[in-house]
Amino acid sequence: MANDKVRLGIIGLGNMGSGHAKNIAAGKCPEIELAAAADIAPEKLEAARGYMPEGVRLFSTAEEMLDSGLMEAAIVAVPHYDHPRYVIRCLEAGIHVMCEKPAGVYTKQVREMNAAAAAHPDTVFGMMFNQRTNHIYRKLRELVRSGRYGEIRRTNWLITSWFRSQKYYDSGAWRASWRGEGGGVLLNQCPHQLDLWQWICGLPVRVDAHLSYGKWHDIEVEDDVSAYVEYANGATGVFITSTGDAGGTNRFEIQLDGAKLVATEDSLRLWEYRPSTPEFEKINTEAWNSPEIVEVPVETDGQNPQHVGVLNAFAARILRGEPLVASGEEGIRGLTLSNAMHLSSWLGRPVEIPFDEELYWQELSKRIAVSRLKG
Amino acid sequence: MANDKVRLGIIGLGNMGSGHAKNIAAGKCPEIELAAAADIAPEKLEAARGYMPEGVRLFSTAEEMLDSGLMEAAIVAVPHYDHPRYVIRCLEAGIHVMCEKPAGVYTKQVREMNAAAAAHPDTVFGMMFNQRTNHIYRKLRELVRSGRYGEIRRTNWLITSWFRSQKYYDSGAWRASWRGEGGGVLLNQCPHQLDLWQWICGLPVRVDAHLSYGKWHDIEVEDDVSAYVEYANGATGVFITSTGDAGGTNRFEIQLDGAKLVATEDSLRLWEYRPSTPEFEKINTEAWNSPEIVEVPVETDGQNPQHVGVLNAFAARILRGEPLVASGEEGIRGLTLSNAMHLSSWLGRPVEIPFDEELYWQELSKRIAVSRLKG
Repeated sequence: MANDKVRLGIIGLGNMGSGHAKNIAAGKCPEIELAAAADIAPEKLEAARGYMPEGVRLFSTAEEMLDSGLMEAAIVAVPHYDHPRYVIRCLEAGIHVMCEKPAGVYTKQVREMNAAAAAHPDTVFGMMFNQRTNHIYRKLRELVRSGRYGEIRRTNWLITSWFRSQKYYDSGAWRASWRGEGGGVLLNQCPHQLDLWQWICGLPVRVDAHLSYGKWHDIEVEDDVSAYVEYANGATGVFITSTGDAGGTNRFEIQLDGAKLVATEDSLRLWEYRPSTPEFEKINTEAWNSPEIVEVPVETDGQNPQHVGVLNAFAARILRGEPLVASGEEGIRGLTLSNAMHLSSWLGRPVEIPFDEELYWQELSKRIAVSRLKG
Repeated sequence: MANDKVRLGIIGLGNMGSGHAKNIAAGKCPEIELAAAADIAPEKLEAARGYMPEGVRLFSTAEEMLDSGLMEAAIVAVPHYDHPRYVIRCLEAGIHVMCEKPAGVYTKQVREMNAAAAAHPDTVFGMMFNQRTNHIYRKLRELVRSGRYGEIRRTNWLITSWFRSQKYYDSGAWRASWRGEGGGVLLNQCPHQLDLWQWICGLPVRVDAHLSYGKWHDIEVEDDVSAYVEYANGATGVFITSTGDAGGTNRFEIQLDGAKLVATEDSLRLWEYRPSTPEFEKINTEAWNSPEIVEVPVETDGQNPQHVGVLNAFAARILRGEPLVASGEEGIRGLTLSNAMHLSSWLGRPVEIPFDEELYWQELSKRIAVSRLKG
């Protein structure tokens, strides 16, 4: 029965697209039926015959697949620049669509995508922010946004655990070029953390970023980032990332009026201040005194369903109107952060959010104009 | 016999000066004989009668004490602005001198102090960088500077464990004012970390700092700092500090070509990369590959003699020419970092090191001119 399962097509069979196909083929998404897939590269289609379930129709263009009538939903897993184009194509055809991260390369094009989504409110549009399914970040967000610990004062994310070798960058001519990817670690590796950062702490109002381009690798784009941000309430933040540190770190600390939270790859720790700092200052009478600091164990649900969780929520939304992990329209928020970091680096000065999106596109275009694909 | 012990006078009997007196009185510095002390505040002298050993002469001015002929060495533990003045007075009188941190408030005045030291090479001049005696930082420096792990790529010090209450700031009219202290957390709390940072990693060549003044407290000076630096070899660094976080963090990470080191308040961890990243890139043939990361236990000598260790080394230098913990002339290095951070914040742009020291003094003078002592 058509209404039991969502018939899905996958646009793009690279690392992500083929990974989704394999998960579905392995039965991890019981409400999704893999109906079709498309890739313009004949060798990707050839490889697909090896892992696709019987009966999945393969197409050499997305357009043919979308016109085939075989599916009511699609995953867009093509190179970054083409995300908005295919999402819009799906939305306009009434095909529910899940977009791989990042939402696009520059916010200007993503605004067009979001406008199409607004024009098709009945077509489901989700973003593949699989890290939002991680119990650590879900719990972190819940604690921060509960209001129980007052306002955020400081955020600090050291996320350098994104090591990539030169051979990785050499493995695709489009990789790490302005023309092919439109950015480096901020566009390819960090969209998850940039999304989580804003999802948990909100968007800052000002960004001052120092980026290095081709610092650790022979590539055009940034592979090292130190960004400082300011939030509307006066809180500050720092975001450090790189693909050059072999043994990098993932440590996200949030200071609040009444607590400190530290999330790492596999742990979440909470220290409560008793009383919160503002309350303490109201009653304290001693020069050498401070709130009591008490570490409190944090319990999470331990669930971390990642890509499969995002896809199952997508199917449940289509079938029963249940909540998405991340709506497609939210993709622009993390991209706003990375665009602001690039723009600050290019202009050599702090950038306010919202920034001049036309200027961003002009600056990016200059770099695309002289960009050279490898090989 | 005069040569068995160093007869010492203490200039200034505030928290630090009285602390040193108590340590010596308790027999922790067997080669130092407390001979005299001076303070201009009658209540400090009165209090001193309670903890000073018998026979220690008390003076109401440093000048009288220095002219008394009672001692051959002195500790300068007066407010920051007066450090260079009293150190120079000692050096010119041939009195060995130990200066409390910071070396001074602005590098211009510290250069005069260092010139006096150069003119009196036989008079011992030490700086109270007691954190250099900490086994964790000594070992960290040894590992970094051994060359075994190649060059530094990234330094990251989150040192927000300097909480201070409003009552602390209210406890002295001079505290946290431009006129009284000439700076906030960078001048009063962080000189140790700024010294250790440069002692271990060297001085950067460029500083871009965001400081907030009176953000968490009713004070004139900075109580919140986010600074980004660049080193001559292209490495980058971040230094975050504050006196506003009740449960702050002390976590210092150094990324090298061949290792990661993380020092906290009470631990030092080392991860070796096998091989180092540059060596790995020469031989790697796989896109998805990275050096092996092996955590290696670090053994330190466990010693952490702090102020007493600095004073005992000072006495041993005077008596037998043994090494100081920190020579006085090195005090300018950490101060260079803090002055550069202030100047970057005041000018709203990155500052190169060496910076314009006359400009720094002018900018500080503007703030002193409108500064108001409390109470």
